[in-house]
Amino acid sequence: MRATSLYAPGDVRVSEIPDPVLRAPTDAIVKVVAGAICGSDLWRFRGVNDFTPGLLMGHECIGVVEEVGADVGSFRPGDFVIVPFDHCDNTCAHCRAGVHSACVNFGATQTGQGEYALATQADGSLVKTDGMPDLALLPSLLALSDVMPTGWHAAVAAGVRQGHTVVVVGDGAVGLCGVLAAATMGAEQIIAMSRHESRADLARAFGATHVVAERGEEGSALVMDITKGVGADAVLECVGTDASMTTAFAVARPGATVGFVGAPHGVELPVGRMFSRNVGLAGGLAPVRRYLPELLELVMSGRIEPGRVFDATLPLDRVADGYRMMDERTAIKVLIEP
Amino acid sequence: MRATSLYAPGDVRVSEIPDPVLRAPTDAIVKVVAGAICGSDLWRFRGVNDFTPGLLMGHECIGVVEEVGADVGSFRPGDFVIVPFDHCDNTCAHCRAGVHSACVNFGATQTGQGEYALATQADGSLVKTDGMPDLALLPSLLALSDVMPTGWHAAVAAGVRQGHTVVVVGDGAVGLCGVLAAATMGAEQIIAMSRHESRADLARAFGATHVVAERGEEGSALVMDITKGVGADAVLECVGTDASMTTAFAVARPGATVGFVGAPHGVELPVGRMFSRNVGLAGGLAPVRRYLPELLELVMSGRIEPGRVFDATLPLDRVADGYRMMDERTAIKVLIEP
Repeated sequence: MRATSLYAPGDVRVSEIPDPVLRAPTDAIVKVVAGAICGSDLWRFRGVNDFTPGLLMGHECIGVVEEVGADVGSFRPGDFVIVPFDHCDNTCAHCRAGVHSACVNFGATQTGQGEYALATQADGSLVKTDGMPDLALLPSLLALSDVMPTGWHAAVAAGVRQGHTVVVVGDGAVGLCGVLAAATMGAEQIIAMSRHESRADLARAFGATHVVAERGEEGSALVMDITKGVGADAVLECVGTDASMTTAFAVARPGATVGFVGAPHGVELPVGRMFSRNVGLAGGLAPVRRYLPELLELVMSGRIEPGRVFDATLPLDRVADGYRMMDERTAIKVLIEP
Repeated sequence: MRATSLYAPGDVRVSEIPDPVLRAPTDAIVKVVAGAICGSDLWRFRGVNDFTPGLLMGHECIGVVEEVGADVGSFRPGDFVIVPFDHCDNTCAHCRAGVHSACVNFGATQTGQGEYALATQADGSLVKTDGMPDLALLPSLLALSDVMPTGWHAAVAAGVRQGHTVVVVGDGAVGLCGVLAAATMGAEQIIAMSRHESRADLARAFGATHVVAERGEEGSALVMDITKGVGADAVLECVGTDASMTTAFAVARPGATVGFVGAPHGVELPVGRMFSRNVGLAGGLAPVRRYLPELLELVMSGRIEPGRVFDATLPLDRVADGYRMMDERTAIKVLIEP
């Protein structure tokens, strides 16, 4: 099959590799209908994170079940499924506690930017739609494999409630989904920190009541003005850099929680400030499977349309262009059609 | 009046200083019936934290109101009161959100190890008993000025619930009160990490079901054995060192929260582990006033006896001996009688 590999920073290409095969009786093979490039793929594309040359790329996809292992009971060939980036058995102690991302049988999608993907722990991980979905729904269903549940997790971790004032740091696809999550949960004021007009527009469409384009201390000061000096009830940190984390803690009111979902890079947490102001930190790798049933219902009923984060669609053989567009921030998020 | 001052590391003495006077109409002066030495006083006594020589000591006390400012409406001379170490107006946005320790009119007790103490924001801070309490209750009432609400705060921040398995890191007075708090909240298993037999005994009396004397990786491994490899539902970090924080995160199950109340000294938070395992951190300086009504009721009804942490009582002129006993860990906590 054709699949995407990263050979060196900036050098991403499609090549022919062997088709995936069932390796365990709990596996399923999914023919990819749509895959995506993730903001976290850029850490390696930019050479920030190490990797072995030839690394298979793509942990987000949706598709049609092609083949299942002997122990897979809930799915059969032809089912249309959402493949969570993190696979789980949905039965272990951590899954039962809602932390599917710490499953004792954890696995991850590897060839979502390819023609076929292997889902380990298929019964525990996959969620199917009721028949083949409308084409128009595909982007939103694809968003359920990672970015929407990740933004949702930030809001859950931050404890967003009806009537809250929420700050979202980061205007990537996850941050925008965080805005959508906060709005869906009933937040009254949602302050999106964004300096890109197209992203700010989408943030507003998703429910942001304020957009702060400034960064650093200037941005924090503006948020404090909007919140009348009190700070935000909940903060969603959707980037993972030290600067974004610093901003998140600067705008959190005492007693608030920063919900973080951006894989941390060079972050030093301000433990003294956290102590003196009683600002907590919660979150991490999103337990996608935990939220999927609820989010799928929200998508199918038309209440949320997270697929709007995809502002470009490219065929698989142009995947390199997709990486460049996201690297240069000319696209928010790119959908890849195999 | 006579009061305790710290002149140099290891040099703590009682000397004559001017009596406190009302400085604001919201102030009250309290004649101290009992004060205490706090574990956090030892950071300065040991020379770890800087201070100005002559620093007045003692932020924990109970006593009788001697004089009140013109704006104090809820107290009058003769009332027996608990003086929280952190004073608050109990009306600002942060107090209303339950974070009294971030009150916009924050103040702190300064001469609790002296004959009189000044309570700023008396109406918002003080809580009185119904008449003069029994002498036997004094230690438990004194514990309500800091250590018991602080241990309670750790348990609240860590999200302790009925049936939980809870680990308490630290066997000082706050850690022991954390054990008592977790037991009162219905925790099923409480693992106290303690290597001092007298403290371990009190931990058991307060509700600990297990005591782990080992530290570091060995101690964490034992906790993981007790929890059948899952980890604790909630962890109370009651020390504030990097080693204790490392242990706290090592024993927390995915999705758990470490509730921290030990002022952090040299702590570097393991942000990567927090992310990959979804372990949160919450807590900080305890909002004593928030918990006082509930805790006072628990003490008066005999349900909790936090005063058992005081295993030594000294007259004020022997306060230096009290510091040495706590420094050398021959006493858990020392009660000072002016």
